[in-house]
Amino acid sequence: MPPLNWLVIALPLFASLTWAQQSLGQPSAHPQLVMTSSDVAQIRTKLGQVPLFDSSLTRVRAEVDAEMKLGIDTPEPQDYSGGYTHERHKKNYAMAQKAGALYQILGDEKYARYVRDMLVQYATMYRNLPLHPKPRSYARGKLFWQCLNDANWLVYMSQAYDAIYEYLPSSERETLETELFRPFADHISIASPQFFNRIHNHSTWGTAAVGMIGLVMHDEELIQRALYGLDLDNFGNARDNDGGFIRQRGEAAGFFANLDRAFSPDGYYTEGPYYQRYAMYPFLVFAQSLRNSNFSEQAFERNDGMLLKAVETLIQLSDQDGEFFALNDAQKGMSLQANELVTAVDIAFQANQDPRLLGIAQTQQRVLLDGAGFAVAKAITSEQAQPFTKPSLHLTDGSDGVQGGLALLRAPNEALTLVFKYTSQGLSHGHYDKLSFSLHAEGAEVLQDYGMARFVNIGQKGGGNYLPENTSWAKQSIAHNTLVINETSHFEGKYEIGSKHHSTLEFFNVREKSAQVVSAREDNAYPATSMRRTMALLNMTGMDTPVVLDIMEVQSASNNQYDLPFHYLGQVISTNFANDADQQRRQLGETHGYQHLFIEGRSETKLPQPTGSNSKFTWMNENRFYTLTSVTESGDEQYFTRLGANDPNFNLRRDPMFMLRRKDTKDTIFVNSIEAHGSYSPITELAQHAVGKIAKLEVIHKSADYLAIGIETDSGNKSMFFLSRKSSGGESHQLEIAGKQVSWSGPYYFIKVAN
Amino acid sequence: MPPLNWLVIALPLFASLTWAQQSLGQPSAHPQLVMTSSDVAQIRTKLGQVPLFDSSLTRVRAEVDAEMKLGIDTPEPQDYSGGYTHERHKKNYAMAQKAGALYQILGDEKYARYVRDMLVQYATMYRNLPLHPKPRSYARGKLFWQCLNDANWLVYMSQAYDAIYEYLPSSERETLETELFRPFADHISIASPQFFNRIHNHSTWGTAAVGMIGLVMHDEELIQRALYGLDLDNFGNARDNDGGFIRQRGEAAGFFANLDRAFSPDGYYTEGPYYQRYAMYPFLVFAQSLRNSNFSEQAFERNDGMLLKAVETLIQLSDQDGEFFALNDAQKGMSLQANELVTAVDIAFQANQDPRLLGIAQTQQRVLLDGAGFAVAKAITSEQAQPFTKPSLHLTDGSDGVQGGLALLRAPNEALTLVFKYTSQGLSHGHYDKLSFSLHAEGAEVLQDYGMARFVNIGQKGGGNYLPENTSWAKQSIAHNTLVINETSHFEGKYEIGSKHHSTLEFFNVREKSAQVVSAREDNAYPATSMRRTMALLNMTGMDTPVVLDIMEVQSASNNQYDLPFHYLGQVISTNFANDADQQRRQLGETHGYQHLFIEGRSETKLPQPTGSNSKFTWMNENRFYTLTSVTESGDEQYFTRLGANDPNFNLRRDPMFMLRRKDTKDTIFVNSIEAHGSYSPITELAQHAVGKIAKLEVIHKSADYLAIGIETDSGNKSMFFLSRKSSGGESHQLEIAGKQVSWSGPYYFIKVAN
Repeated sequence: MPPLNWLVIALPLFASLTWAQQSLGQPSAHPQLVMTSSDVAQIRTKLGQVPLFDSSLTRVRAEVDAEMKLGIDTPEPQDYSGGYTHERHKKNYAMAQKAGALYQILGDEKYARYVRDMLVQYATMYRNLPLHPKPRSYARGKLFWQCLNDANWLVYMSQAYDAIYEYLPSSERETLETELFRPFADHISIASPQFFNRIHNHSTWGTAAVGMIGLVMHDEELIQRALYGLDLDNFGNARDNDGGFIRQRGEAAGFFANLDRAFSPDGYYTEGPYYQRYAMYPFLVFAQSLRNSNFSEQAFERNDGMLLKAVETLIQLSDQDGEFFALNDAQKGMSLQANELVTAVDIAFQANQDPRLLGIAQTQQRVLLDGAGFAVAKAITSEQAQPFTKPSLHLTDGSDGVQGGLALLRAPNEALTLVFKYTSQGLSHGHYDKLSFSLHAEGAEVLQDYGMARFVNIGQKGGGNYLPENTSWAKQSIAHNTLVINETSHFEGKYEIGSKHHSTLEFFNVREKSAQVVSAREDNAYPATSMRRTMALLNMTGMDTPVVLDIMEVQSASNNQYDLPFHYLGQVISTNFANDADQQRRQLGETHGYQHLFIEGRSETKLPQPTGSNSKFTWMNENRFYTLTSVTESGDEQYFTRLGANDPNFNLRRDPMFMLRRKDTKDTIFVNSIEAHGSYSPITELAQHAVGKIAKLEVIHKSADYLAIGIETDSGNKSMFFLSRKSSGGESHQLEIAGKQVSWSGPYYFIKVAN
Repeated sequence: MPPLNWLVIALPLFASLTWAQQSLGQPSAHPQLVMTSSDVAQIRTKLGQVPLFDSSLTRVRAEVDAEMKLGIDTPEPQDYSGGYTHERHKKNYAMAQKAGALYQILGDEKYARYVRDMLVQYATMYRNLPLHPKPRSYARGKLFWQCLNDANWLVYMSQAYDAIYEYLPSSERETLETELFRPFADHISIASPQFFNRIHNHSTWGTAAVGMIGLVMHDEELIQRALYGLDLDNFGNARDNDGGFIRQRGEAAGFFANLDRAFSPDGYYTEGPYYQRYAMYPFLVFAQSLRNSNFSEQAFERNDGMLLKAVETLIQLSDQDGEFFALNDAQKGMSLQANELVTAVDIAFQANQDPRLLGIAQTQQRVLLDGAGFAVAKAITSEQAQPFTKPSLHLTDGSDGVQGGLALLRAPNEALTLVFKYTSQGLSHGHYDKLSFSLHAEGAEVLQDYGMARFVNIGQKGGGNYLPENTSWAKQSIAHNTLVINETSHFEGKYEIGSKHHSTLEFFNVREKSAQVVSAREDNAYPATSMRRTMALLNMTGMDTPVVLDIMEVQSASNNQYDLPFHYLGQVISTNFANDADQQRRQLGETHGYQHLFIEGRSETKLPQPTGSNSKFTWMNENRFYTLTSVTESGDEQYFTRLGANDPNFNLRRDPMFMLRRKDTKDTIFVNSIEAHGSYSPITELAQHAVGKIAKLEVIHKSADYLAIGIETDSGNKSMFFLSRKSSGGESHQLEIAGKQVSWSGPYYFIKVAN
């Protein structure tokens, strides 16, 4: 999409009040943003006595000292992400922020001089700086190709400036503020309203940047602009580079509006944890700055302490290794080790003193060089840390908490984690993956969500930005573990349709550890078609780990082709059907992501597959075995595919997929189980339980009202799962199965049956 | 190949002398094999004082106690590897050996009873046991499908029997020896000479098994049979299941012959480290047993201490993570953590007191429950451990040390390790990969050797045995980083040809750290064709890690097609040529492994590729970047391929390959450089030095006598590498390059040239 041409929009006139007139008292002495002068005083007396703080200080000092030796470079902006000028300016603000902290803690003026010299150099440059020459962004910055990076710069540089504020003579402060900070703040706000005035992580960065420099400068007008946005409302249907709408008519804007709108009551950020992580930094450091500055309006208390709840939720959205689940656009590998999470954990601990956060801080092995970081390090030294356990959890989506949600089923502990997604679209970074799931075993991805098609900051790969394959593959429904009808993505893959709808939770119940169950429906992804998926972790007698039961019910007004993919990772071990591998790889389809898949194998259709029989597929992933057992119908086909078609630049990983296909069918039900079993060691060469234990998976009863699934192990242990198809309420139900009456109340019932 | 039918061969008559008549004195009291009664006495006084020994003891005790609770099961043999009866009998001998050690150390009779009861059960069963029902092995066992596993059983059970020898009344000993051990030893030797009488790891196990039970039973005849083999010589050209010859006419046999023949003077085992690891266990425990038993003939002193040298060499053949390089048939992931290596390290330390072995033992975190393990644990407690550093190394192959060899170039430390192979065939587990190499960065495989196509002990995969793809792919030349001519493997992939030849070292020089160089030639892989490959690690000004320079010279009597593959692992980042990706994947070829490769992309041949220009390919592997720069000639083609064709059972990993192809050429030279550069973090999202620094790689001079290669970095640093093509001697050479005289002596010369 070509960048939009934005008219210069008249600035709404805020009264240019002085600080003292608005806020409750005199401004605190600098520093006052993320670090305060009383923090500094306390830290200085304890140097050498708090190991985690000391080691963090040593590391940062070595890093900054090494960088200072290279001298200061503020090159003429010219590159996209990954290019030299981009990376240099990024490094500059990171170093300046750290040097500022070192100056405060160590009192060594060389760090203050370094920050001042860099800022003066920027001031000289900024005066006549045109828009960044690279045209790709919907909101171009000056130092960077997009305003977003300029906002990053200002968030960090505000802290650097705050740290050396008292060191500078007032004349130099005035020069910096007039020549650099004020015009810089104006560019990313007044001159870029399409960036500044949204409900979006971009605007969270933009408003925090403007607000933080406003706090340092004691500029009430900038602070108000940051908190409440620009009074503008003429964006029409304009979109950003990711296809997201700029702003809906009549929406509130500004930092507070973002805080109010971005999170669900459960602290879930609608774009998913990768972007939540990215947005948490400005949310928290600006909130911290408002508090440290004793400003008249505060953020932490807002919405029942939403910001701290969001930190808890963000941590919950990670696997056993602390890596975030790849929901929507997300880079694999992003984790609790990120700097943003160090910030989040430290600031949250200072606010709520939750000792489980110390457990996370211990794995991070570093703290912030400020009062929050010091509080964490000190508490760890006095052995207050507790482990951060992650239970099963349901998280609502939407600021009102009624736009679907996300379920995490875990058992036991994090041996298995099933992530089931029935959220809203998730703004411009959302994927078309209603009722999709991913499965994780400790830190391993067993059934993956592809994540995003992007090599962030690797210049050779499309300038480090989103690649075309993010749209043509990663966002498409077939790239997820969910049902795809007629080779078309949910909502036809159209943002304007998808963003109007959300899935709906039927029920979520994890009270009984023998059966943790979640069920949700989606009625809008396809015309005149409703889908309901029920997923459970069931404790079966004789099984080491719970069995995943997956029931996908579809009702449609038309005959359709149904594709149910399972994005397994690992090596195929065995199937119970012959695999008809072509000698030439053909594409699975033409559009909606299918054009990127090669058919690697297909069940031989000449084999009998009577209705009610089971197809079986076992694979090995990180030295464990997994078996998918599927109740098949006559005519069902099994496909093995591999990514790579229509991808001459190798922008996609060559990942595999297994898929069940059912053709020419109206209403139908897919019943699958996934069991984790056994282990392998390439060192002892011992294979334990390489064969799955589920001998039979069957639909025992199917009517308009009820569904009964039987599961039997190879040693004859039987279990049954009953599902009420019509109601999720707590009514009483009765059903006759093989001449016996079964009664239960509630939406489902799980029983183990004697042999 | 069908199993051979072996006639019962008459047993050569050794005089049935008693122990006391042959050996130097009275037999020691039991135990006397890997553990002695004086070891036991010492260990018992120190329990609770040597942490690594105590923790090893605790772990083994917990394991054996848990197993004993399940009761003893000696099922009727019926399965291949991975099946229940196979795994059960394997577990039995492992548990019995450990229970025996626990009995000695803890003095708790329950462990002795457990071993006795198990042995009695085996004795009852063995009496009437037929050959194992599964017919696949060239030498079928009785408990297992192959004699090899029966020999494993006896090596361990000898130790278990030795541990409880004194506990048993003599009547029970006689029953066990008559009904079980003696016929068992006879079956794997006299009744299976094709297994017992070879120079092969199978026979090392077989002879150690017979010798060890002989030592426990004080049966001189068994010991002599073990040490010197059976006096037989009528195997003709019979082969084993891997295609290896059973025995060459006139060869010596027995344990000592294996010891004398299996290792090169540098301690390199011709089959490679995976099988060296496997063979080291019987080599060392039988040697240890001979020593502990004070037997008249000893193994450790033999051949200038070859066994201990072999332990050192085996450790050297691992990457920074301790994983063995995958030379010949080898399972990836096998490492210094294997039980066999715990045995090797402990026994070797007891023999040579090398404190670097303690450094390895520390990473193993466990020791043997015997005198050797105790010695290691005690020395670690008294802080004698030193790090085991791994330098660059040349290892000869062949028992005479003149059948080629293997070079390891490392710099700095193990940041890069280049493994260059110019060995002999490597017996039946050898691959057709003359002059091949692999490249490792710390613990990561950058350019891989595929290893073997086998899922050891995973029953669903061909009974856990070698898969057909091991022959059709893994052994073929194209599966390795070496030159393949006319789509035909070296020696046509024929063992009888390959095993007659070896490559030849030209020179190896790692004295100057600025240029570590190795050069070798192969004149027999193709008719009327000679290949010479020179590989170097060069320190270039301005580069963080050394550059790999790879010069492959070919001279042939005929016009050929040359394929030079690079088995990169990771994600394609960029190429400097357009990639012509077909929408259908076609096979690269029809035979010699080519039938398993799909073409994933090809350089667009319409692009000009003038002779002397460079093609460039950058990939990312485990968050580091690598760039291959190739001097191209007009008409050269670049291919990207992926494994998976003709593999309907997914027996092969879907690994990628990059390949240079030069057609219709007689003599030619391939010049390539590989640089490791920069890094990426998915957490900081920082890409450093994602673009390679080599700006130009060129052949500056080429004549019948000399080759000069120029390398220039993007910052203008130039280096030149001169190679004498005719002689590897120390003569003086002189060459005029661009009007300047360059003089050097020796086979090569590397200089950095001022800008």
